[in-house]
Amino acid sequence: MPVQMELARLILSETSDEQYIILKEKDGTRAFPIVIGSVEAFSIRRSLVGESTPRPMTHDLVVNILQELRVEPVDVVITELREHTYFAQLRVRQNGELVAIDARPSDAIAVAVRCNPPLPIFVDEGVLEQAIGG
Amino acid sequence: MPVQMELARLILSETSDEQYIILKEKDGTRAFPIVIGSVEAFSIRRSLVGESTPRPMTHDLVVNILQELRVEPVDVVITELREHTYFAQLRVRQNGELVAIDARPSDAIAVAVRCNPPLPIFVDEGVLEQAIGG
Repeated sequence: MPVQMELARLILSETSDEQYIILKEKDGTRAFPIVIGSVEAFSIRRSLVGESTPRPMTHDLVVNILQELRVEPVDVVITELREHTYFAQLRVRQNGELVAIDARPSDAIAVAVRCNPPLPIFVDEGVLEQAIGG
Repeated sequence: MPVQMELARLILSETSDEQYIILKEKDGTRAFPIVIGSVEAFSIRRSLVGESTPRPMTHDLVVNILQELRVEPVDVVITELREHTYFAQLRVRQNGELVAIDARPSDAIAVAVRCNPPLPIFVDEGVLEQAIGG
């Protein structure tokens, strides 16, 4: 069963390439961090603070593609934790059919925060238990 | 009229965030450089040298989205040069209809080199003349 999470914090370091996002259970207290790269972290930040750029940056391009193709973004699901690495899917609806696209959680969340409204983020219950060491 | 170009060189510097690609006319000798960011430049490089990653990186995600949505990538067109900045479009075919999506040239080319076969790259004739100072 997927558990809905929210992006509780984005912790940025200028001196390291390892950045952190903290996902917290929407209707609960469980939370866990995901280490992400600087490019994706600053891309998430730009969207959260509403910073705009003259040309579409890479995650804007992803959102533009979905819009231009009239595909409805649905949600992000973190599906797996393997050797300290999380795997995710960006799910969209095309002609009524759900299509799941493999993505890194960081890319999927950078897309999620750019959608209006932002896409909900889910974590598979088993992955959540693994993540919090339960 | 668009002129077909080829990605003649990718010039990477480890010490600067300004990287260069050189586009050269396919059936001619005109060529010009575009300054791009490191993230996009190294993404283009990874694809050119056939380096694979355990999870899809951002431009792989773009290509995966097009594949999963059964949309055919067509080409890249550099459409404008304004205040030393190039603007491009990634063009795809959806249900027989051509759809143009605004993108930075660097993102569009990072997608182009990942397609099989790689997408042709065009530059608007007026932009080419502007670029080479003609």
